[in-house]
Amino acid sequence: MADDIKFNKKKEKDFSEWFFELLKAADVIDQRYPTKGFIIHKEIAAIAEREMYKLFEKELDKTKHKMMRFPAVIPESVFAKEIEHIEGFTPEVFWIEKGGKDKLPEKIGLRPTSETAMYTMYSKWIRSYRDLPLKVYQEAQVWRYETKHTRPLLRDREFYWIEAHDVFATKKEAEEQVTEDMNTTKKVMYEKLGIPFLFFKRPEWDKFNGAEYTFGADVLMPNGLVIQQPSTHFLGQNFSKPYDIKFLDEDETEKYAWQTCYGPAISRILASVISIHGDDKGLIFPWEIAPYQIVIIPIYKKDSNQQTIKNYCKELQKKLSEKGIRTELDLSEKRPGAKYYYWELRGASIRIEVGAREIQNKELTIVRRDKGEKQTIKEEKLQEYLKQLPEKIIKNLKQKADEQFKNALHEASSLEELKKQLNKGGFVKINLCSRDADGEKCAEIIKSETDGGEVRGTLHNKKEKPTGKCIICGKKANAVVYVAKSY
Amino acid sequence: MADDIKFNKKKEKDFSEWFFELLKAADVIDQRYPTKGFIIHKEIAAIAEREMYKLFEKELDKTKHKMMRFPAVIPESVFAKEIEHIEGFTPEVFWIEKGGKDKLPEKIGLRPTSETAMYTMYSKWIRSYRDLPLKVYQEAQVWRYETKHTRPLLRDREFYWIEAHDVFATKKEAEEQVTEDMNTTKKVMYEKLGIPFLFFKRPEWDKFNGAEYTFGADVLMPNGLVIQQPSTHFLGQNFSKPYDIKFLDEDETEKYAWQTCYGPAISRILASVISIHGDDKGLIFPWEIAPYQIVIIPIYKKDSNQQTIKNYCKELQKKLSEKGIRTELDLSEKRPGAKYYYWELRGASIRIEVGAREIQNKELTIVRRDKGEKQTIKEEKLQEYLKQLPEKIIKNLKQKADEQFKNALHEASSLEELKKQLNKGGFVKINLCSRDADGEKCAEIIKSETDGGEVRGTLHNKKEKPTGKCIICGKKANAVVYVAKSY
Repeated sequence: MADDIKFNKKKEKDFSEWFFELLKAADVIDQRYPTKGFIIHKEIAAIAEREMYKLFEKELDKTKHKMMRFPAVIPESVFAKEIEHIEGFTPEVFWIEKGGKDKLPEKIGLRPTSETAMYTMYSKWIRSYRDLPLKVYQEAQVWRYETKHTRPLLRDREFYWIEAHDVFATKKEAEEQVTEDMNTTKKVMYEKLGIPFLFFKRPEWDKFNGAEYTFGADVLMPNGLVIQQPSTHFLGQNFSKPYDIKFLDEDETEKYAWQTCYGPAISRILASVISIHGDDKGLIFPWEIAPYQIVIIPIYKKDSNQQTIKNYCKELQKKLSEKGIRTELDLSEKRPGAKYYYWELRGASIRIEVGAREIQNKELTIVRRDKGEKQTIKEEKLQEYLKQLPEKIIKNLKQKADEQFKNALHEASSLEELKKQLNKGGFVKINLCSRDADGEKCAEIIKSETDGGEVRGTLHNKKEKPTGKCIICGKKANAVVYVAKSY
Repeated sequence: MADDIKFNKKKEKDFSEWFFELLKAADVIDQRYPTKGFIIHKEIAAIAEREMYKLFEKELDKTKHKMMRFPAVIPESVFAKEIEHIEGFTPEVFWIEKGGKDKLPEKIGLRPTSETAMYTMYSKWIRSYRDLPLKVYQEAQVWRYETKHTRPLLRDREFYWIEAHDVFATKKEAEEQVTEDMNTTKKVMYEKLGIPFLFFKRPEWDKFNGAEYTFGADVLMPNGLVIQQPSTHFLGQNFSKPYDIKFLDEDETEKYAWQTCYGPAISRILASVISIHGDDKGLIFPWEIAPYQIVIIPIYKKDSNQQTIKNYCKELQKKLSEKGIRTELDLSEKRPGAKYYYWELRGASIRIEVGAREIQNKELTIVRRDKGEKQTIKEEKLQEYLKQLPEKIIKNLKQKADEQFKNALHEASSLEELKKQLNKGGFVKINLCSRDADGEKCAEIIKSETDGGEVRGTLHNKKEKPTGKCIICGKKANAVVYVAKSY
């Protein structure tokens, strides 16, 4: 098993190698499953994901979303109603045509996303303005037949996400929902998980299939590439018309509803957490999602009474577990050093060392994973220590992540400069003729000339007025956009 | 929407009608999804299921299980290694042959259960006795192409369950695991959810495909039919051999591992909770899984200051929600009576009525859903009241359920008597020649002669010695078994 794996990759030197080797060495996932693009989420991934789900649940509940579960399969006829949507997703659908030996009456697809499954039902549920707003989310696996190279947690053919699908009587409310979704993202991704990001309004040519506009949160990975994290889409009436989601308004007329959807991909957020916070010793997690929050390690000296120490450790584990803290006790026969190594690799938030001296002095020796800082505290102070710890850890992680993020914002006023800046990694601000369809040609030139630089869009929370010309075509610039290379 | 649905079915009169109409009226599920056998788990189902998952997680974590997530698909070649298993499950598998327009290199099936997916990986993970025991569970959807009539929550083509798959170095440990699984079942199903059941060792002809033996928990539904709830299986080495799960033992020899598996079907447990605890007013839940634990209803009189009452209610909801209590506030324009009706139907555990008088006297009027009991308490006593409430509710629910269960245990010493007793519903104890393969013929006679009476097995926790003859063939009875009609 993974116990004996040594991890000696350097994040600074080769991020990709560090990341994929860490996933293996720390036993986060196993990608040796015999179906390509499908991986096992081992304990670390499964628990961190479960806890991330809870963080989102909390925010979605607060903003009056209802949790439901929709089927994993979608009949072809239901899927086929919104034309842009089906054109975008059909190539990625896994199709089921048989149950046992029977041919099914209709081909069904594994959901790549659930607009069509959910909106089919919404049209039955919504009758009057009194039924609105309807705000629903589900925690779901989705499946996409990726033809690109798959990479564990970043691009699998099966992944875990949340999708929220909201319906409103007015355009205004729907547009406000998009802002609320961005706030939810900030509350979880940044405040709880310490992942900085920028929200961009995507250019016309890069919006969600079927949306009127899309905001995507771009997270910066340590290798300077960006990755899209939660995105939120204003669907307008693009789905309510084909899916017949109508309501009788207060004024007694029938109207089509306004819709939004929002989709944080939990597995991919986990990839960001690991990438951004981890170090050369292994995983580092924010306390709330740490699969192992505390590990207790008994320290025996020659003259120690091992049984006394063991009993003390067991008692301590019991007490902490009862408080709902995920606490491990390592009673294996390894040396303490090997145990430290093992649990640092797996990102246990703190290690408590207990030896005869500690028991005698009613003290605990605590080592924090995120800072490496060692501290001895009185046993009676443990509760207070643990109360303050989550905030201290996330503050430290945020600070480091913010520092890196800040250094990855550049500007360029010519294609040559853009190339140079892009090589540093991160975002490069430029003037572009347009973020509407008109600008697509220039964006394509950027992409081919810079070896993959993509126009990510205009900043969400900051009006930036272009003053000069498009750095590609030289026409009057109508948009200040950010370019980055992405996963 | 469902707001206006009136529910007037009688549980005593026609249980099935009561159950299926209640699922609709209380908005538990929606079965109008366009793929047969696939339903929407609406808010009530989704939250109750989520909370049931947490109850099982707690017990499985305590018994040192690790949570993981395995792929939803299984390649045909992996599925095909254990012959009894594949023969049992293949007719129920949904097969995927295409991704987009591409034919996949190998047919993959949607998991109907995950032995084969998991054991394929176990063979890679287990090397030495130090890697054992390995105890893993996942919370998963499974899919089965049911050809029988589907019924929401009871028999769907997609359902939610937990499956725990454990591996041991010795037979003894594996057999002890089966007992531990039964204890877990008791802790959750009976102690937390108030569902009485009997654990039967299934007869040879009714065990899990691939198991050496199976224990199944039989729950009694109000119509006298039984339904199998969590079952636990001793697999022996039936899977470790074809899946090559070997380990190097302390004695330096290589051995095949011993295995068990355990599978509580969450959706079906929900069906039992609803059936057993519900009444003619609607749903009743144990506090811990109640989707709506508290509903606050403002009561306005002619001279009330509505805004004061509303503000008070909002403040109260905020306070309770912050404590993690699922609290609704009904500010709709309906009359109080209509609100009571609505929330009783949906099983809100308590209703707090707040009017001017209550605010003035610093009192709260509380009505318990499970007892219908109305009580006025001082506001400052609310916390204490809520602390005691979960225990009081479950005690009451258990008491009622136990009473019904007790009345459903019968005996018979002839086929005629068996027929008569079976008509009363519940379990009938009889003498049978054998619970091994030899007895199957007599069991078949029972089934056809009694219009579906099934031999459920021998009691788990009680050695019952047969004294007479098999009530069918008249040979010496070797087993005391229980017969019941089932879903």
